Amino acid sequence: MAELSNIGKIEKIAIIGTGLIGASFAAALKSKGFTGHIAGCATTDATITRALELGLIDSGSTSASVVADNADLVMLAVPMMGFRQVLENIAPVLKDSCIVTDGGSVKGSMIEDARQVLGELSRVVPGHPIAGKEFSGVDAADSVLYAGQLVILTPDATTDPVATRAVQQLWELCGARVEVLRADDHDRVLAATSHLPHVIAFGIVDMLAKHQSRDEVFRYSAGGFRDFTRIASGDPVMWRDICLSNGGAISEILGELMQQLAVLKDQIEASDGAALEQVFTNAKTTRDALIVKYDSDLLAQQSARNAANKS
Amino acid sequence: MAELSNIGKIEKIAIIGTGLIGASFAAALKSKGFTGHIAGCATTDATITRALELGLIDSGSTSASVVADNADLVMLAVPMMGFRQVLENIAPVLKDSCIVTDGGSVKGSMIEDARQVLGELSRVVPGHPIAGKEFSGVDAADSVLYAGQLVILTPDATTDPVATRAVQQLWELCGARVEVLRADDHDRVLAATSHLPHVIAFGIVDMLAKHQSRDEVFRYSAGGFRDFTRIASGDPVMWRDICLSNGGAISEILGELMQQLAVLKDQIEASDGAALEQVFTNAKTTRDALIVKYDSDLLAQQSARNAANKS
Repeated sequence: MAELSNIGKIEKIAIIGTGLIGASFAAALKSKGFTGHIAGCATTDATITRALELGLIDSGSTSASVVADNADLVMLAVPMMGFRQVLENIAPVLKDSCIVTDGGSVKGSMIEDARQVLGELSRVVPGHPIAGKEFSGVDAADSVLYAGQLVILTPDATTDPVATRAVQQLWELCGARVEVLRADDHDRVLAATSHLPHVIAFGIVDMLAKHQSRDEVFRYSAGGFRDFTRIASGDPVMWRDICLSNGGAISEILGELMQQLAVLKDQIEASDGAALEQVFTNAKTTRDALIVKYDSDLLAQQSARNAANKS
Repeated sequence: MAELSNIGKIEKIAIIGTGLIGASFAAALKSKGFTGHIAGCATTDATITRALELGLIDSGSTSASVVADNADLVMLAVPMMGFRQVLENIAPVLKDSCIVTDGGSVKGSMIEDARQVLGELSRVVPGHPIAGKEFSGVDAADSVLYAGQLVILTPDATTDPVATRAVQQLWELCGARVEVLRADDHDRVLAATSHLPHVIAFGIVDMLAKHQSRDEVFRYSAGGFRDFTRIASGDPVMWRDICLSNGGAISEILGELMQQLAVLKDQIEASDGAALEQVFTNAKTTRDALIVKYDSDLLAQQSARNAANKS
């Protein structure tokens, strides 16, 4: 767990985007005693007023450059297709020493945006908190959203390790566990475990919604379908941006899955019970073994949340 | 809710297969005061002994024909590829008046098996309880497994309505809600909402388990992936049999999904944000509307379970 004294040099944090991710970051920092100034940028005055009312930010503006002025750290927490525009807006006012980090789900595109606009990456520390819930907006701000959750940082080879350490310490203050990965490894792995399942879930629900038996289909859908499609309730704009930002990796793993489905379709049509049973058994064995990991993740999160709520 | 008096003419029930479905059917009937004889068939003496110890059955045998002898109703609750063999074994001892029902997930193949072996369908009432949990075997028997759950019956046009009514009353005694559908409608709808998602979930987990980045992939998989793949922990033999029994409908809907995925892949590769956002928005709107149904289903089940536990 980070100590506040270690991040004393960060006196002003600018959070661009006060939705679930940005507002929860502010809420966690405030609740853990961060005494610096937190400035928030949102698209409407009403959201800024609400964030001030909730005590999440100390000042706010609809202008990113006003918010980023004199900041020691900028957190980008808008949908990813907005990153480049925000960086262009704030670049003229950024202090040389200002660290730039983010909360987006794709890291290669963030690095590319930062490289294009800022010219170099010494103060750029891309980050991805693997946390979320089914609500969004400033009112969903949750000071323990990140407690016990994993945050992946993907600094470039040219990123200053001091900047990486500062971002890591802020996340640890929020109660998160931090790991460092290469950006392209992150994007490939997340394409498989998160982006692909979302595309499939959205795709199946959209297909069935247009089906001629639509009413019957949904009438008789039960618990298994509910769990399988839960992620199809995700934010469409956020997921559009993830698909646009990580298109290469998503398209590649989607292609692999389509090959796997073509094989399964052939096996079903050929009534090849032995082959089907082998695939299903391998999947079940793998999935059952994963439950141990999920249970231990959940225990770690629960315990971190309890600790965060007590302090 | 059925009254016991209405099903007084069913004095002996033979349950072929004392796994989760068959044993829970017995447990529910016993707990609701069914005073007739319940005979159980299992593949091992140890399972029969356990079912007797648990008070689920009054007699048991590893021979289906011994168990079915003189029965007023036979419930087939073995994996579906075993139905035909069981029917061939018991056909010589079945009373003319004996009702034959089942708990399988595919109805067209059950009707076909029964037609082939029994020659006609006047006492055949195919059934599908849409209930289950992640455990199996006689020790998973649960007297409230069916409380508030949906059971679909798919009698043939030539099935005697008296037989259908008797099966319906038994399920209602177990606390279930009963609906009647045409077998081919049932199989088409379930292919979309249950069989297709299972094939996809098994297929994704199997693919990732064989992936070169397997360890990283599962290390960073989180809550969304856990929910999406929960159904990949299903019983491989049961799901193999479902794929073999309902291959036509599953192959058709799987083909439709593959077309949908090909369109999404093209949209991702073409960076067509507007098209992606439209698909995702339609899916989210549909999925969010379904939550209302699931919540009301869950409430009905909870209330039926509470009532069952009190009585």
